[in-house]
Parts: sequence; structure tokens; C-alpha cells
Amino acid sequence: MHHHFVPTCYHRTLGPYEPVLRIRSGDTISTTTVDAGGGNHRGVAVTPRGNPQTGPFHVEGAEPGDTLVVQLDQIRPNRGSGWARSVVAPSVVDPTYVKQLPDPPLAEWAIDQAAQTATLVSPVSSLGRLTIPLEPMLGCFGVAPFRQQAISTATSGEHGGNMDYRGFVAGTKVYFPVFEPGALFFLGDGHAAQGDGEIVGTGIEISMDVTVTLSVLKGKTIVWPRGENAEFIFTVGNARPLDQCLQHATTEMLRWLEQDYGLDSVGANLLLSQCVRYDLGNMFDPAYTMVCKLAKRFLPHR
Amino acid sequence: MHHHFVPTCYHRTLGPYEPVLRIRSGDTISTTTVDAGGGNHRGVAVTPRGNPQTGPFHVEGAEPGDTLVVQLDQIRPNRGSGWARSVVAPSVVDPTYVKQLPDPPLAEWAIDQAAQTATLVSPVSSLGRLTIPLEPMLGCFGVAPFRQQAISTATSGEHGGNMDYRGFVAGTKVYFPVFEPGALFFLGDGHAAQGDGEIVGTGIEISMDVTVTLSVLKGKTIVWPRGENAEFIFTVGNARPLDQCLQHATTEMLRWLEQDYGLDSVGANLLLSQCVRYDLGNMFDPAYTMVCKLAKRFLPHR
Amino acid sequence: MHHHFVPTCYHRTLGPYEPVLRIRSGDTISTTTVDAGGGNHRGVAVTPRGNPQTGPFHVEGAEPGDTLVVQLDQIRPNRGSGWARSVVAPSVVDPTYVKQLPDPPLAEWAIDQAAQTATLVSPVSSLGRLTIPLEPMLGCFGVAPFRQQAISTATSGEHGGNMDYRGFVAGTKVYFPVFEPGALFFLGDGHAAQGDGEIVGTGIEISMDVTVTLSVLKGKTIVWPRGENAEFIFTVGNARPLDQCLQHATTEMLRWLEQDYGLDSVGANLLLSQCVRYDLGNMFDPAYTMVCKLAKRFLPHR
Amino acid sequence: MHHHFVPTCYHRTLGPYEPVLRIRSGDTISTTTVDAGGGNHRGVAVTPRGNPQTGPFHVEGAEPGDTLVVQLDQIRPNRGSGWARSVVAPSVVDPTYVKQLPDPPLAEWAIDQAAQTATLVSPVSSLGRLTIPLEPMLGCFGVAPFRQQAISTATSGEHGGNMDYRGFVAGTKVYFPVFEPGALFFLGDGHAAQGDGEIVGTGIEISMDVTVTLSVLKGKTIVWPRGENAEFIFTVGNARPLDQCLQHATTEMLRWLEQDYGLDSVGANLLLSQCVRYDLGNMFDPAYTMVCKLAKRFLPHR
Repeated sequence: MHHHFVPTCYHRTLGPYEPVLRIRSGDTISTTTVDAGGGNHRGVAVTPRGNPQTGPFHVEGAEPGDTLVVQLDQIRPNRGSGWARSVVAPSVVDPTYVKQLPDPPLAEWAIDQAAQTATLVSPVSSLGRLTIPLEPMLGCFGVAPFRQQAISTATSGEHGGNMDYRGFVAGTKVYFPVFEPGALFFLGDGHAAQGDGEIVGTGIEISMDVTVTLSVLKGKTIVWPRGENAEFIFTVGNARPLDQCLQHATTEMLRWLEQDYGLDSVGANLLLSQCVRYDLGNMFDPAYTMVCKLAKRFLPHR
Repeated sequence: MHHHFVPTCYHRTLGPYEPVLRIRSGDTISTTTVDAGGGNHRGVAVTPRGNPQTGPFHVEGAEPGDTLVVQLDQIRPNRGSGWARSVVAPSVVDPTYVKQLPDPPLAEWAIDQAAQTATLVSPVSSLGRLTIPLEPMLGCFGVAPFRQQAISTATSGEHGGNMDYRGFVAGTKVYFPVFEPGALFFLGDGHAAQGDGEIVGTGIEISMDVTVTLSVLKGKTIVWPRGENAEFIFTVGNARPLDQCLQHATTEMLRWLEQDYGLDSVGANLLLSQCVRYDLGNMFDPAYTMVCKLAKRFLPHR
Repeated sequence: MHHHFVPTCYHRTLGPYEPVLRIRSGDTISTTTVDAGGGNHRGVAVTPRGNPQTGPFHVEGAEPGDTLVVQLDQIRPNRGSGWARSVVAPSVVDPTYVKQLPDPPLAEWAIDQAAQTATLVSPVSSLGRLTIPLEPMLGCFGVAPFRQQAISTATSGEHGGNMDYRGFVAGTKVYFPVFEPGALFFLGDGHAAQGDGEIVGTGIEISMDVTVTLSVLKGKTIVWPRGENAEFIFTVGNARPLDQCLQHATTEMLRWLEQDYGLDSVGANLLLSQCVRYDLGNMFDPAYTMVCKLAKRFLPHR
Repeated sequence: MHHHFVPTCYHRTLGPYEPVLRIRSGDTISTTTVDAGGGNHRGVAVTPRGNPQTGPFHVEGAEPGDTLVVQLDQIRPNRGSGWARSVVAPSVVDPTYVKQLPDPPLAEWAIDQAAQTATLVSPVSSLGRLTIPLEPMLGCFGVAPFRQQAISTATSGEHGGNMDYRGFVAGTKVYFPVFEPGALFFLGDGHAAQGDGEIVGTGIEISMDVTVTLSVLKGKTIVWPRGENAEFIFTVGNARPLDQCLQHATTEMLRWLEQDYGLDSVGANLLLSQCVRYDLGNMFDPAYTMVCKLAKRFLPHR
């Protein structure tokens, strides 16, 4: 079934809240997300800033210990302008260099849906009007956390959250561990484009039209978020420092290979040894994000 | 001038040692490197293990404060078999998972120069005979460090060293700060292929035929290694944890953009904001490595 | 006013929950805490494991932006036996050493209130019956977090939580930022004694009789928990890695010195320069803890 | 035998250099050290800045795999004034706070040997003339590193070096692994007093009269520096981040307890569990330092 959902309220924590919609496993939802500052498709702030989330959506039959599959069907900016921070965060340069960072105002980027580009409009600098390709993605999405926690959308964890990974584009399938009945899926914080690491603390922040298909893998238990696209399977580690993100993601990949791809422990290690790839999600939020990837062409046939 | 140099001794520290050859800026050297274990093109150990280096090469005119340019012209395995570790390091998985890591013997990979592939020969596992593309690279190379230090080839720093970055392939140009007269360039630790992070502690270790062209940028001072290939310019940060690698590399990229690309500070920050990319070198050695990249197509015209 | 409160339910997250008792600023509460496993003064598990908290207590007049003062009047084990883990966590030894860690059962420690000692009863080892002094402390206590989050008692943050600092003994005054009306104070996770770092993941876990006096500093805003005892003032940073804990705590100390002790920025820095001391809270939980201390005798007279 | 050695040259790297004096195991040396800036007992710079070291001293019979014992007999400032940095390093505060750090000139501290105090003379600030106790210590000392490296006195490692631990005072015994024949012992970087973490990047830097007694433990192999004083045995971990320092130090302590105190693995873990203490050396240098301590009164009788 395909639901069209118009949000009227938003959450800035992922927690065990009252669902805004109950759907069945396999259903599709088309909805909208406001930008990180609470701005809607007209650029009007309709809710307080801080990655406000649409949802939560309750998927019938999802129970703790299951896995929620989120197919990102469509992520499309629904207005003509996005905003971003203009200067890299003090935490991503040498501490001795921080005093040399400038203090420019927020940037405005014009979005051209026809050309599929974003063009820097302001502030004015020696860079001029830089034009880059659109790569629409979701910065923050996930499920209600374990132990009935309610966790800020500024950060991330086993439940997903603010991961800011450039790979979360349309066409990607993402897996989350289920901690609450119904899984309680949230989404928001769309970026028209983003640099690796989200090192300025934002992508090009914009409201989105989003379509997702949610389904449940009964009895399938995972520890960290997983995903796949046409080319790769991947796992996501959210923590600090980056070293620990990589540890979580690598461990989850070993588990995946052994559980689902028929590999023994030695085989899984050998496969990773020369084929593993890593991507950086964000190195800005309270918890950073790194992604462990493996090309599907190297996987054993299931 | 094109030199053909046959090494007869090797160094396991990068330091202010007597040059094995003196060349002029712009000269080309064709030479060989032994593998990380000291094995030559016949697989015979001719020197103790530990990333033994060919060199150092003295480039006339290079003085502290200059930059050495290393054009990687050719990196070609010169034997039919490489070796690798088979299991990910305890430091790249969750500490609680370490006890589940297996303890397999070293792996052997057969190298097929015609097909440009490496095929896993042993140990036997559920993975079978995995075949992957050759991507020959140098794991450890660089110059004599500052303050007349002599630093182990197990680690890395401003002077380069054991960075284990998959991007150090033929066709890449690498820049090092010069700390000693003549720069004193070393090279070794060739990998027929390698996973990101060198998470097992090795790539496919093999001896190489290498050709490099060395030249000096007089009066050009850099802090961390830099590089470029057809598509990207990049900077290299070597430290621990990964967070600090990223800080070093990002700071160096900002310096580069402002010094050489005519950008003011705001422009450099805006350019990085949505266009920066990061790669992981190794997360195994005493100092880890991360690379900050920027696509050349987004750079202002110089 | 002195309240005697008998808890009947417990929380394993610190969040904006219904108060169990409303008191006035300056009131004293005598109550009990169960041990980390939910065991009461008879050693009977009365609630699920995971640092269950007594509370929350609502302090009238406390509003976001104020500071809650917690005077730890008394912390006294209320039974004759505590339990602990027996082996250091894999995360506090070299990753290459993890496989050498033994796998002993939980330890039992006999508590002698008269002698003020704890004696190791089991497991049997070459160490024999080690006897150490009692140093009763609270491992986990704090207030409801910002943004109406509900955060697991396994971890810590600006709101306090599971800090496992040996300095949280009777006679200590602790300051927390207030994020919710009434502050909503929780307490639990008593330790009869504990090593620095809580490196086995527990102290000697035991139920406690606790007396605290809670009061509100209206209009006083702090960022991280602060405290003082007869000898020191101190600030608490909760994060990962330890480096970041130290950064938070040091920054908070500079703020404190400048705001409340009449020091200019140079004076505050000079005072810290040769007089600062640091203690380790835990290096076990998702967020670690470090404490920045300054001896009161070096403070300017207020 | 008691040697009186007057240095005429200094080293800014610890490496396999020509000894300035050869002594026998058990001999005592009285000598002097210049301050971190190269200043002698008259405050005259006699060698370039950067923790210049007196030595190396060759101890006959010391071979790789042995342990060098350094008894710190006396460490006494030999002039009336020391200098220090006045502001905490950007790396020890929150990155977002760095821009608020002031930029004062170096501090001068007057040393009063009779009163055993140091008094802040300048810069002038709201703090006034702070007087603190003298606690003379060595910031940087150690032996020639493994693999014939030459490592800057700005940093530290298994060989010791720039550890900046307040516990390295007279009366302390320190153990170093021997990597080179004769051990090659260096010393320098005296501090009249120092805060934990050396968070401004210096203690009160001053030249010293130092007396040490050096002896060799044949066939005794250790991995990281160890030490002891009247109350504690301790181990030293030098690395980044602090987490890794603690891992090294804890692992070394477990090894020590099992090798020399007759404890089995379970006993060593149980002993650490509730009795371990940690101190912070520096969190300023390229490698940080943490110390793992155990009170002697809890040790089994050897």
C-alpha cells in the first residue's frame, strides 16, 4: 500500500513516541521533511531547529530483535534554495589553527532541479559562484533506540540518527535493528549535497519530498545499521573517535559475512583483508560515523 | 637523466643517512624495492623484515624549507607471488570481539601480470580462490625527518613513511617537505593490492620495479605530504587517532587552497564545505593516515 | 525539611519522568538505592539490572538555566556483601593483549561496616583474601538531560549520569545544570569502593542508604557538572575519548574561575598552568569521565 | 663510584649516539641539565631550544633485553628563576573555546630554595603573585630507542622521553627497557613544578643539578617504563589518545604483577579491579602519557 502522509508535528529526539501512522510491512510512504532548521518547502520555519523528524511510523509486526528494512525510493529537494554553514568546524582542523578560521555568515545555495545542480549564491568570496551536482540524501533517520531512550537528533547510535553519510541517497536500502514494537521510524535532515565528514556542520540543508518503503525482517537481529546499493554492501559505526566508528562497522561487517554469506571466520577475514573500503559519514556531531563497505562482486554467491 | 640503481643495502628507519645516489632535480630513477619482509624478486630474504627501504637518494639543491616532488612513474610487481596477513588486527574490531578473531597462517596471493589480477591461493577457507584486480602501490616512502630524527618505517609523520594509502599508485605526484639537504628520499613496502585501512596489517606484500622522477620546488614550504592525480589534489595527515589525521590533512588543504589557488580564507572554507572527500590510509600502524581530497574540476583556475 | 523516601520503582534512563517526590530547595532526602544489578539491601533483585535509579525528585523553583546543588550527606552500604567484575575490560588493555585476559566469575566482597573494610571472598586466586578500605560513593546520579532526552544510566553527559568518579563520596557537593522544571534528580549505582577508571566495569556494587540535600542556585548557569570538597573545587567532563573529557572539564574550570572567582582570562590560565590536577572517572562506559581539580588554597579570596 | 660530569654538548633526539661517559652498573652520576630552552644555571642559552638532553651515559653490561634502573637521587633547581607558558594549549580545551584563549607573554617564576616555593612574577594579571610549593622533577629522560631510531625530545615512547609526569621526583626509581648496548641514558627538561597534563606545554622550566644512580637488571625484559616510590609501583604508557596511554600502562602493570609478584592472571586482575589508580603525565606532546599505579601495601609479599 502507498501512503501519502502530511506531517503536522516533528520530533527532535528519536524515542518511543506515539506513531503518526501505522503501516504494514512492505508499505510505501510518501511524505515531506523540513530542513535542519525547521524550514518547510516554502522556507518557512514551522518547528524549532535541530534536525526535526517526520514520524514516527509504526510498522506492524516489527518487534525487538527484528530488523527494519528502509528502501530509500526517492529523496527530492522541494524548494529552490538551501542553506549551509560556510566555515569548517574548529574540531576538524589542528587546534593551533582554530584562531585562523574566518567567521562568515551562513551560505545560500540555489537549487536547480532541471540541471540537477546547486550553485553558491552567498556569501561573496574569492570562490565566486561555485556550481556542484545535486546529490540529495538524508542526514538523520532511524528508529526508536534501545532501553526506551529518547536521543537527540544531533547525534547517532545503533538506532541510526544523525549519521550524515553521503551514501544515503535514493536507491539505497538501509537496515536498522528494531528496539521498540513497530520499530518507530523517523526521518529528516535532508541535504541537497554534502561534503564527506559534514565538516562545516551542515550539508546544503533543504526540505525534501521523500518516498520510502518499510518492511520487517522477522527474527533477523543486527547490531549496527547496515545498507546496500547496486555496487556495495555496507555497515555503519556511530561513536567517537573515528577509530571506534571503524571498529563497530568492521565488526558488524564480519558478523554479516559470517551470518548471511556462508563464510567461516577465516574466509570473512580474508575477504575483508584486501577488499574492504571505508567512507566517512560525519566528523562533526557528538557521535561520528564511519562506513565499512564491500563490493558485491567479491561476495560469495548466496 | 635516467638512473638505473641496484640497491645493495636497505634502511628500516628514515633518517639522515649517507645517500646511495646523488641526482639532479628532474632526474628519473629506476630501481627495485624488496617486500615488507625483506624478500627480493626471487622471494629470497636479503635484509631483515620491517619495510626495508631503498635509498636514500640525494637530490641536489634541495634544502630544508623546500618541497620535494615525487612523480610515481611506474610501480610493477617483479615476481609471481605476494604474501599477506589473513586476519584483521585486534585494533580494528570492537575490543569485546577480539577473542572471536581466528588465528590463520599468512596468506599467499598469486600475481598474474598479464591479467592484472591477484588470486588467493592459501589458506584454504570457505572463501575459496578469490581473484581481485592488481592495484600496485607503495606503502612506505618519504624523506629524512626534521630535527635529524631517524624514524622507524613502521610509522609515519610529516616526512611521509608508512602511510599505506591506496592512492599512491603510478601516475600520482607526491609532495614532501624537505628537512635535510638533498631531501634524502627513501622508498619501499610495495603492495600488489591493499584494502582501505590496511586493516590486517599488510597489503599483498611484494617486491617491485619502481620508477620515480624527483624534482625540487625551491622556496616552497609545506607542512604535510600532498599529492595529486588526474582527478584530485590531496593532502595527507599521519597521527593518532584518525580524528587527528583528518585535522592535519584538512588544515593542510586549507593552507594549500589559500597559498596556491588564489582563494581567501572564506573561499577556501566554502570550497571544502560541500566538495571535500576523505580517504583512509592505514589504521594499523603507530600513526594512522587519512587523506583529504578535492576534485580538480572544482578548483579555481590558477 | 527532611524527607524519608522509600522507592518502589526505578528508572534505567534519566529523563523527564513523573517525580516520585516534590521537595523545596534546601530540603534533605534520606532514601535507598539498589545496586547496579537491581539488588536491594537483602540482595534480592527488585528491578531489572543496569544502574536502576531512585527518583526523580522534583525541586520546586528549579528552572532550565539554573543550577542544582547536591550535597552528598551520607552514602552507606546497607548490606554485608557486594559484587564486582573480576577482570579488566578488553578496552583498557592493548588490543593485542585481549586474548590473554582470563574469564573468571563475578567477585564477591564482604563488607565490614565496623572495620570500614571490604574483603575479597571469591573467586579464589593467588591473590587470596585482599582487604581494602571502604570508600562508599555514587557511580551514577544526575538530572534529566536537555532537549527532553531520556539517556541510559550506562552512560553520562552534561546532565551527569554514570560518571563513576571515586570523588563522589559523602561530604562532597555537586552542581548540575538544570534542563527540566524541577531539575528531576536521580541517584543510584553505589560502590563500596572502586578503582580509578572503573576498569573492570564495576566497583564493588552494593545497595546504599543515602542522604542528600538538594538546593537551587537561581539564575546560575553551568555547562558541565561541578563539585567541591574540603580541599578542591572540580569540574567533570563526560565524553570519548579521554582527551575530550579533559577538554570539557578544563574549559568548564576556566569558565568557573572567570565567572565566580574574579579572575581575568590570563589570571585563570596562569592559575591552572602549574596547579591543575586531573582525576580519572571511568574509562569503561560509552562516555568516559575525567575530572579537572584545583586546590582551594590557591584560589583567590572571593 | 660517584662521577661528576660537566656537559659540554646536548642532544635534542634520543638515539644511538656516542656516549659522553661510560660507567659501571651501580655508579652514581652528578651532573647538570639545561632548561627546555637551552638555558644554563645562569639563564644563558648554551644550546638550541627543545628539551636538550645531557648524555648519553653508557652503562657497562647493559644489553638489549635488559632493564636499566634509574634511581633519581636528587633534582635541584640551580638558579633563582624559571619560565613557563601562561595559557593552556588549544588542544586541552573545547575546540569551540579556542578563540577565547588569551595570548599572554611567557611567565616568570621566582624560585626560593630556602622556602621551597615558586612565586609568579609576571605577567601581571588578576591572579597577582601566586606562590606554590617547589616539586622539582624531570620532564624528559630515557634511553636510546629500539631499531636505532633517533626520536625527538618533544615526544615519548617505550624508551621514555618527554613524559612530563609529576611523579618523577627525587626518591623515585624508574625502569627503562634497554634497546642499545650500554642503554645510553639521557636526561633533561627539569621543572621546578608542573601541573598535571603539562597543559600549558611547560612546567616551570629551569636548569637543574641532578644526581642519578644507574644500574642494570640483566635478563629482565620490560615493555614500557616502570617506576616505584615509597608508596606505589607504577607503569607508564606513552601514546595518543589518552585511552591508548592507559591501555599500554594497564597492560604493563598486569605483566608486572604476573611476572614479579607471583600472581596468576585472575589474581592480577582482581588486584587491579578495585585498587588501581591513574595519573596523567602530559596531554600536550605528540605522545601523551598516563601512569597506572598500585599501592605497595596491597601487593602480595614477594
